[in-house]
Amino acid sequence: MIKRIGILTGGGDCPGLNAVIRASVKTAISHYGWEVLGIVDGFDGLIIPDKIFKMDLDSIKGILPKGGTILGTSNRGNPFKYPVKKDGKIVTEDKSDEILKNILKFEMDGLIVIGGDGTLNIAYQLYKKGANIVGVPKTIDNDLANTDYTFGFFTAVNTATDAIDKLHTTAESHHRIMIVEVMGRDAGWIALNSGIAGGADIILIPEIPFDIEKIIEKINERNSRGSHFSIIVVAEGAYEKGKDKHYIEKAKNEGTLPRYGGISNYIASILSEKTDMEIRTTILGHIQRGGSPTAYDRILASRFGVEVCDLIAQKKFGYMVNLVGTQIVSRPIEESISKQKLVDPYGQLVETARRLQISLGD
Amino acid sequence: MIKRIGILTGGGDCPGLNAVIRASVKTAISHYGWEVLGIVDGFDGLIIPDKIFKMDLDSIKGILPKGGTILGTSNRGNPFKYPVKKDGKIVTEDKSDEILKNILKFEMDGLIVIGGDGTLNIAYQLYKKGANIVGVPKTIDNDLANTDYTFGFFTAVNTATDAIDKLHTTAESHHRIMIVEVMGRDAGWIALNSGIAGGADIILIPEIPFDIEKIIEKINERNSRGSHFSIIVVAEGAYEKGKDKHYIEKAKNEGTLPRYGGISNYIASILSEKTDMEIRTTILGHIQRGGSPTAYDRILASRFGVEVCDLIAQKKFGYMVNLVGTQIVSRPIEESISKQKLVDPYGQLVETARRLQISLGD
Amino acid sequence: MIKRIGILTGGGDCPGLNAVIRASVKTAISHYGWEVLGIVDGFDGLIIPDKIFKMDLDSIKGILPKGGTILGTSNRGNPFKYPVKKDGKIVTEDKSDEILKNILKFEMDGLIVIGGDGTLNIAYQLYKKGANIVGVPKTIDNDLANTDYTFGFFTAVNTATDAIDKLHTTAESHHRIMIVEVMGRDAGWIALNSGIAGGADIILIPEIPFDIEKIIEKINERNSRGSHFSIIVVAEGAYEKGKDKHYIEKAKNEGTLPRYGGISNYIASILSEKTDMEIRTTILGHIQRGGSPTAYDRILASRFGVEVCDLIAQKKFGYMVNLVGTQIVSRPIEESISKQKLVDPYGQLVETARRLQISLGD
Amino acid sequence: MIKRIGILTGGGDCPGLNAVIRASVKTAISHYGWEVLGIVDGFDGLIIPDKIFKMDLDSIKGILPKGGTILGTSNRGNPFKYPVKKDGKIVTEDKSDEILKNILKFEMDGLIVIGGDGTLNIAYQLYKKGANIVGVPKTIDNDLANTDYTFGFFTAVNTATDAIDKLHTTAESHHRIMIVEVMGRDAGWIALNSGIAGGADIILIPEIPFDIEKIIEKINERNSRGSHFSIIVVAEGAYEKGKDKHYIEKAKNEGTLPRYGGISNYIASILSEKTDMEIRTTILGHIQRGGSPTAYDRILASRFGVEVCDLIAQKKFGYMVNLVGTQIVSRPIEESISKQKLVDPYGQLVETARRLQISLGD
Repeated sequence: MIKRIGILTGGGDCPGLNAVIRASVKTAISHYGWEVLGIVDGFDGLIIPDKIFKMDLDSIKGILPKGGTILGTSNRGNPFKYPVKKDGKIVTEDKSDEILKNILKFEMDGLIVIGGDGTLNIAYQLYKKGANIVGVPKTIDNDLANTDYTFGFFTAVNTATDAIDKLHTTAESHHRIMIVEVMGRDAGWIALNSGIAGGADIILIPEIPFDIEKIIEKINERNSRGSHFSIIVVAEGAYEKGKDKHYIEKAKNEGTLPRYGGISNYIASILSEKTDMEIRTTILGHIQRGGSPTAYDRILASRFGVEVCDLIAQKKFGYMVNLVGTQIVSRPIEESISKQKLVDPYGQLVETARRLQISLGD
Repeated sequence: MIKRIGILTGGGDCPGLNAVIRASVKTAISHYGWEVLGIVDGFDGLIIPDKIFKMDLDSIKGILPKGGTILGTSNRGNPFKYPVKKDGKIVTEDKSDEILKNILKFEMDGLIVIGGDGTLNIAYQLYKKGANIVGVPKTIDNDLANTDYTFGFFTAVNTATDAIDKLHTTAESHHRIMIVEVMGRDAGWIALNSGIAGGADIILIPEIPFDIEKIIEKINERNSRGSHFSIIVVAEGAYEKGKDKHYIEKAKNEGTLPRYGGISNYIASILSEKTDMEIRTTILGHIQRGGSPTAYDRILASRFGVEVCDLIAQKKFGYMVNLVGTQIVSRPIEESISKQKLVDPYGQLVETARRLQISLGD
Repeated sequence: MIKRIGILTGGGDCPGLNAVIRASVKTAISHYGWEVLGIVDGFDGLIIPDKIFKMDLDSIKGILPKGGTILGTSNRGNPFKYPVKKDGKIVTEDKSDEILKNILKFEMDGLIVIGGDGTLNIAYQLYKKGANIVGVPKTIDNDLANTDYTFGFFTAVNTATDAIDKLHTTAESHHRIMIVEVMGRDAGWIALNSGIAGGADIILIPEIPFDIEKIIEKINERNSRGSHFSIIVVAEGAYEKGKDKHYIEKAKNEGTLPRYGGISNYIASILSEKTDMEIRTTILGHIQRGGSPTAYDRILASRFGVEVCDLIAQKKFGYMVNLVGTQIVSRPIEESISKQKLVDPYGQLVETARRLQISLGD
Repeated sequence: MIKRIGILTGGGDCPGLNAVIRASVKTAISHYGWEVLGIVDGFDGLIIPDKIFKMDLDSIKGILPKGGTILGTSNRGNPFKYPVKKDGKIVTEDKSDEILKNILKFEMDGLIVIGGDGTLNIAYQLYKKGANIVGVPKTIDNDLANTDYTFGFFTAVNTATDAIDKLHTTAESHHRIMIVEVMGRDAGWIALNSGIAGGADIILIPEIPFDIEKIIEKINERNSRGSHFSIIVVAEGAYEKGKDKHYIEKAKNEGTLPRYGGISNYIASILSEKTDMEIRTTILGHIQRGGSPTAYDRILASRFGVEVCDLIAQKKFGYMVNLVGTQIVSRPIEESISKQKLVDPYGQLVETARRLQISLGD
C-alpha cells in the first residue's frame, strides 16, 4: 500500500511545472491521504538528500499561476555519469545506487518525476533498476512522443507570437526584414506554431533545411507585390541546406563565429550582403521559458499532476501520463524516450503554413 | 470546377473569426486561384445582397490578431423564419429560396459558413435544399459535438482565468467570498476550465445543479482550515438543484428578479443571508467574446480556414471541419448539430476538479 | 538614532503595495542598517501584537511583481472606534493608547504606514498623540490630494481599458450598448482615464451628475451617423442629476433595488425602456484591485518605499511622500487628508474628453 | 482663420502615434470644423505630394489601441539634405522650398508634426522659413527636454519589464546570469526604469560608463549571499569606462565585431571568460517599438493630439506640446531640440536604484 511518495522536477524551466506539483500534492494528500516529500534540485536531491522536505497544502499555496519550479532543478547532470572531483580532476561516477538507497531510506512508495527526454531517460533507467517511478512529460519544445502536447509549449508559443505581433507594425512602416529567433532545440514546433499564429512570411525549422536563395526569392516576391517588409521566424536549430546540422555551434566552439548570438545573426549577415533592405533581429532567449502559464497549460499541467497520482495508486510504475485528444492516458515511459516527435515536413501543419503562403525556405 | 466561393460569419462574436476568414481567403485566392465574395452580416447579406463584395489579399491585411469579424454577423435571425413587417405587424417568412437564388445569381460554386449550432443548423437546411455549403464550427462555449475544441474557447477561458488570478490576492487579504460569473450558455466548459486554471474553490456548472448548503459547507470547511476566503466561478447557465433550469430567466421575464444581473447576484443574495462574510461579484459579460485570440486559437482558426477550402475543392458539401487530437478532419454538418457537447458530470475533467478539492456544489 | 522601524499596510487592496514594502525593507536594512518589523493586518496588528515579525531580505523575495500585500490589511476598522464585544453586544472602544504602547514595547523608532485617506487619517491622529509615523499614499482611486498620482491607479485603469478594448469588437458587430462599471468611489478618475484610453462614447463620473436624456441623445446621434453601438463607462459613484448622491446605495439598503449589482444595472434598466437597442453590462468589480502592477506603478511604489525611509532618517514624522512631476517630495500628512482630489469638471482632462467627442452625460 | 491643416509623423515607430493622430483629427474636424489632410511617409510626403489625402472620422476608426502609424513615416531622411540620384551618383539636395511650396499649394493653414528630435529639428527649420508648424514630442527613449514623459516610453518599459519578469524564474532555478539588452540610444531611461520595475540586480546605462570588475563584484557578492543568479539590464548605448562611447559601433563597422548582436553579447563574452557561471542573453530589439500602447500612453498621446490643435487655433506656430506634472503645456520647439534629456547620474531615480541595492556597474 502507498503511504508516502516523492516528487521532483528535472531539466530546463517550463511554465506549468508548479501547476503539476500543486495538483499532485493536492491529490496525494487530500484525495489519497499519502505523505508527500519534496525533493529539491532534481535527482541531485536524491544523491545528497539534505534538502528533502515534507510537503503540506501550505507548501503549494499560490503557486498555480507562477513560472519556474518551487522544487528547483538539477544543476549537475546525469546521475549515471555524475561529475565528481577526484584528485583535483573532474571524473564521472554512477550514482544511481545512492538514489535507489535514498528512495528506500526515505520510504517513498512512489516517485513522481517531471521532466523532458533527458530526465525521463534517467527515470526509466532507475525504474529498470527497481525504483517505483511514474513520469510527467515536460518541455516547451513539444518534441516528446506519445503526447499530443506538453504543458509550457503553448505559453512559449504565446510569448513568441506576442513578439511577432509587436514587430508587425514597425516592420510595415519601415520597410524592414525582421528576424525573430525562437527556441525548440532540434524541433521546429515553437517556430512553426508561433509563425502561423503571428502571421510570419517565412518560417525556418530544423526539419526543413533552408536555402538562402529561396528566402531572398520570397522577400523579393513580397517587395514586388508592394509588401516592403518581411518577418522571418527562425528556430534556434534551423540550418542551411547542404551544411552540417550543427555548423553554427561548431563554428562558435572553433571561434569562427561569436560565442553569443545564434542563427538569426548568421542569417542577418548573409541577407544584409545579398539585399539592400534593413534587417533587425530579436532573440527572445529564455523569456520563452518563463512567465505565468496560459490557461491551457495550467489545465494540462493540473490534469497531468492529478492523473500521475492515479498511476501510483494503480502501481503502474514505469508509466507516464500523456495527452491524447481530450483525455489523459498512460503509456510506458520507455516508448516516449525511444523517439523524438519532430515536425513532419509533409504533415498537415506544414501544409497549412504553405497554403497560407508562408515560405519554409525550401 | 470551382471558380468563385462566398464566405460569411453568423452568430455571436468569437475571437478567431478573422483568422478563419484570412486563412480561407489566402488559400482560396493564392493556392486554388478562386475568386472570393465576402458576404456581410451573415445570412442577412444573402437575403438582401447589397453588401456582397469581392475580396482580395488586401481585404484581409492585418486582421489575424484582431477580435470581431470584418464580415459582420446577422442581426435579424433565422432566414427560414425571417421577421418582416406586414400591415404594421412583425410576421415571419421563409427567405431560404431567396438565399439559394442569390447564391446562383452571384455564381458561388461553394459557400463557407462559419458559425455555431444555430448558424450551422440553417446551413444544413440550406445544403439540403441544394446549396454548396461547407462549415466551420465557431463558439466560445465549446459545446459543439465532433470537434475536440472550438477556436475562441481558450481565449475566453484565458480572459476568465486572468480575472480569477486578479481576485485571488484581494480575496485573501480581505476574507471575502468572490463570485465570478462567466459565459457558456447551457454548457459549463468555460467555468470548469477557467475554474481549474484559476484555482477556484467552487465551480458551478449547468451540468451539475448546485445545492446552496453544499456551497456553504465548502466555505465553512475552508474557514475552519484557516483559508478565510473563497472564490466561486459560476457559469451563467448554472441553476439550483430541484429548480427549473431557467428559473432565473423566467423570474427576470416575470419581473420578480431585476432584468440586469444574473445568477451570481442571486447566489450572492442567498449567501449574504446565510453567512456573515463579505461577498463581491464580478460579471465579465461580453469581454469574454472580445480581445485578440490566443496563439492556440489563431492556429486552430487558421487551420480550419485552410482545410475548409479543401472540402470545397473536393466538393464535400454538407461537411464541416473539426479538430480531433492534433488533426483537422471533416464530418457531416448534420452530425454536429444533432447533439450538444456538454460537460460529462462523471468524466475525467470533472473528476480532476474534485481531486483538486474543488467543490462542484453538489 | 533610528535602530528599528515598523511597517504596515491598511485599507483596500492596491497593486504595488508589495513593491513599496520591498523597497522600504531593502532601503532600511541594506542602506540604513535598521531592523524592520512587519506588522500584520494593519493597525489591528498593533492592537493585538501577536503577529509582528522581524523582516529580512528573504521576507521580500519575489514580491515585486505580485498584487496584494504580504502584510495583510485590517479587517476590523478604525482603532479609535474599535468594535469589541461587551455583554453580548458590539460596542466601540478607543484602542489608540494600546497602539502607542505597543510601538514603544517593540521599540520602533519609526513606523511606515501605507494607506488611503482612512488609514492616513488614523496615522495622523496617532502621530499627534506621539507616534513617529511617516506615510505612503495608496489608493487605486487616485483621489488623494498633494500627489499627482498614486500607485495602483494606472494598473486599475489598464485593467478597465483592456475590458473596454475587448467590448469594442462585439459592440460594433452586434449593434449594442455596452456598459462597463468601474471603481473609484466618489471620484471619477478611473472612469475618465480608462474611458479616454479605451475610446468610450460616454463617460459618467460622480463629479458631473448625468442626465439620462443626454445619454440617449448621444446614442441617437451615433446611430444617425451610422455607428450603431455605444460604449458607456460608468464610475460606481456616478449618479443622476437632481437625485441624491447616494440614492442607489439607499435604495439597496431599503430593499427597493437588489443588494448586488450597481449603477450600471440601473442605467441599463432605464435605457432598455427608452431605446430599442440591446444592452449588455460588465461589472469589473475587484479585478481592478488585483493583478501584477504595471511598470509605472512598480516604479512609483518603489520610489515611495525608498523615499519614505529617508523621511524617517530625517525624523520628518507626520510627513508623507508624494509624486509631483517627476520627483518624489514630502508634505505633511495633515494636508493630504484634509481634502479629497476630485476630477475638475472644468479642468483640462474633462475638456480633452469633450473635444474627443465623448459625452459626459450632461 | 484656420480652414485646413495637415498632419504627419516622422522617425521611428512609437506606440501611441495613432492615438495622437486620432485625437487631432477628431478635435480638428468635430470641435474646430477644420479640414484635415493626412500626409503619408513623413516629410517625404510633402516633397513628392502624391499621397496626401483628406481625412475624415472614418480614417481614424479603430486605430486608438493600435501600434504603428497609419500615416507611415519617412524612409529617405532629412529634406534639407535629401538624397537624390544625379548622373548615377547619390547626392544630397535641399528640398525645403518644395515642402513650403506644397504646404501653400495644398492650402494648409497649419501643420502638425509628430516626431522625435530629428523630425522636430527639421520642423523648426521649416518653421523659421515660414511654415505654420506645431509639434508633438515622440520617442520611446524619453530623451526629449521640456516634457516629463513622452508617449510610447512606458509601453516600451512595460515590454522590457515583462521580459525581465519572465527571466527571473529561470535565472533563479538555473544559477545563471541573464542579460537583457534594451533600447534607448544615448539615454538610459528605458534600462533604468525597466530595471527598477523588473527587480534587476545590475543596470548599465550610457550616462554611467561601466566597469566590468564592478559587475563581477556584484555577481560574486550575490553568490556569496546565496543568490546564485543575477539579472543584468543593459541599455544599447551603454559602454565601458575609459573606452570611446561608440567603440562597439566602430568595431562593427571595422568588422572586428559581428554586425548583428550588440553590447549584451560583448558583455556576455567578457563575463564568460571571467566567471564560471552560465550566461544567457535576450535582445528585445524592435518589439519595444510595437504593441498596443498602455492606458497611460494612450491618454498622454490623446491629450497631446487635442492640445496641439489648440496651438494651431491660437496660432502659436513654432510651439510644441509638453507634459509638465499633470498638465499639458506648450513651449517653443527650439527649446526642446537644443538639448537632450539624459538620466542624471546623481538624480533621485539613480539614487533610488542604488538604495534598492542595484549596481550601476560603477
